[in-house]
Amino acid sequence: MKFDEQLPYILQKKNIAYFDEDVLYIGDRRVYPFEKRFHPCTNVEEIALAIKEMVTQGGGPLQVALTTLRWIAHQEGDSKQVLSHLLYAQKQLTQARPTNTTMARTLQRAIGEIAQWFHCSSVGSTHQGDFVSYVDEIVNHIEKQYDEVYDTLSDLGSSLIKDGSGILTTCFAEHSFILSVIKAQRDGKRCIVYVPETRPYLQGSRLSAPSLEEVGIDVRVITDGMGANIMREGKVNLYMTAADLVTMDGTVVNKVGTLANAISASYYNIPYYPFAMSPDTSKEDASSIILEERDGEELLQCLGRRTTSETMKGYYPSFDVIDNTLVTGIITPKGIVTKENIKNIYT
Amino acid sequence: MKFDEQLPYILQKKNIAYFDEDVLYIGDRRVYPFEKRFHPCTNVEEIALAIKEMVTQGGGPLQVALTTLRWIAHQEGDSKQVLSHLLYAQKQLTQARPTNTTMARTLQRAIGEIAQWFHCSSVGSTHQGDFVSYVDEIVNHIEKQYDEVYDTLSDLGSSLIKDGSGILTTCFAEHSFILSVIKAQRDGKRCIVYVPETRPYLQGSRLSAPSLEEVGIDVRVITDGMGANIMREGKVNLYMTAADLVTMDGTVVNKVGTLANAISASYYNIPYYPFAMSPDTSKEDASSIILEERDGEELLQCLGRRTTSETMKGYYPSFDVIDNTLVTGIITPKGIVTKENIKNIYT
Repeated sequence: MKFDEQLPYILQKKNIAYFDEDVLYIGDRRVYPFEKRFHPCTNVEEIALAIKEMVTQGGGPLQVALTTLRWIAHQEGDSKQVLSHLLYAQKQLTQARPTNTTMARTLQRAIGEIAQWFHCSSVGSTHQGDFVSYVDEIVNHIEKQYDEVYDTLSDLGSSLIKDGSGILTTCFAEHSFILSVIKAQRDGKRCIVYVPETRPYLQGSRLSAPSLEEVGIDVRVITDGMGANIMREGKVNLYMTAADLVTMDGTVVNKVGTLANAISASYYNIPYYPFAMSPDTSKEDASSIILEERDGEELLQCLGRRTTSETMKGYYPSFDVIDNTLVTGIITPKGIVTKENIKNIYT
Repeated sequence: MKFDEQLPYILQKKNIAYFDEDVLYIGDRRVYPFEKRFHPCTNVEEIALAIKEMVTQGGGPLQVALTTLRWIAHQEGDSKQVLSHLLYAQKQLTQARPTNTTMARTLQRAIGEIAQWFHCSSVGSTHQGDFVSYVDEIVNHIEKQYDEVYDTLSDLGSSLIKDGSGILTTCFAEHSFILSVIKAQRDGKRCIVYVPETRPYLQGSRLSAPSLEEVGIDVRVITDGMGANIMREGKVNLYMTAADLVTMDGTVVNKVGTLANAISASYYNIPYYPFAMSPDTSKEDASSIILEERDGEELLQCLGRRTTSETMKGYYPSFDVIDNTLVTGIITPKGIVTKENIKNIYT
């Protein structure tokens, strides 16, 4: 079975992004599961804007960025032009999501390798065909590496799930989490996942819950204020989320709503394990995090319908910073790391 | 100024419930502030059903119950029939909201007094006019007492608000809270109130926030998962809610979502003060609370639109139980009481 085939619809690479000649299509997570719609982009600015406008989110922008590299390489004639186009794309896409730096770091690495290859080849004599193949190769390699990372993370995640578990999550923890639960279920461990709806864009209700349902997991949607309630009732014995960013002291950044549940989990002695590709080794602690702010207007609607008076103001801090004392362990490709050993393992 | 005139629209008695001949009208809080609609009821069963279906909520059912007593007294001819009708109404309405016992206790007291008066008068010779006047008198008296209670509670609440305060609330804490903020503002204390939208029925977005806006308070709507975030940011120095029920050990019951914020407030050393008319002296502790459960389907919509797949399941515990260790003090008509002194003050 190919890696993607075990995944629910929304996580399969072809449903995150693909391109033909002049258009790159991004799977529109804003309308899923009500519609399976793709958002067309004809240039890098439109791709960056689509990411800003949450057409895709979480790990989506990473896959979109990799597809963008391929698309640019396939599009243009002159290798030098392509390289400058790739560098421009890197800048635009990186700025689109300042908090989650995985995409930015991956782009830097990919384009760095491509640039190095370009400069090592005799400039000007590089054939387009060679160039396209090389970009494809780099991107394929990175995609394969990520698939392996997801496999490792979900092996670890699955090992933490006991038979009869109640698992709380927040937002959409994507491959690592969904695969952890899939693997636990394959191993005969029954579990039930409680998914907060994750306002204002309902990533929980629309992405996590239907994805878990699609792969046969027992799911219950709750509202964002109910995590503490079900922990007090004893329905939860594990809290797992993605991490948009981890700093070198074990501080975790993730979608707003994560912190409230992490504090409640700590209060009820329930372990909290976020998944992370890796910490951002350039960020020492919470003080170096760039926190994305969004327009308060965005949360005064639900599925496009106004939820309050026309004149009301909203306040929308989109990410939570979770102190390292609230985190039991961070599930990384190098194992489950803690605030005590993260520096030893990642420097 | 009459008591009601200082209140926002939704809390004025005439907008909670009124009647003419054959119909009792309940202000429909489900559609406010988009519409100012009244829900017509032609009998007690319909009133009880309207309360169950959240046409009104929080303190609304209490005012509806008092209006129902008046309506029944005005409706019928024979005093004995009326009394039996009142007793039937008491039973129906009490069953409509099992968790919040204020309405139940008030009905018991009012109908007890009416029954006593009826039996002390020479049975059969009681004129309808006398009976109607007596019921009106009893209900007026109770309403006036509640107005005085709201005044006392809001004097206490207001005294806890410092100039420059950031106040977090949950759901719709009605008279006591809104008046506290109004009074603080009258005293020249500036404050900003953060209101979680309170899914699934958006009592925060639709009732609390527009009511505060109507009386000139600075308000920001947030989602239900953001309380901890703004506490961590230092934007909040006071957490205030209603209490649907307080038991004799200082345990507080309130709308789901209250607990998560109370735990976070405790974590960030922010005081939490719920408002209560009085503890329920018949309930020793959390073990004696009847927790209302609602259909999980209810939270899979927002303003009538489905938020997830058609086949999804929801879980809807509608009330939180907040341990007394998380409560700084309970604002009651007898002062601010704590778990240490509540029994001395209320027995």
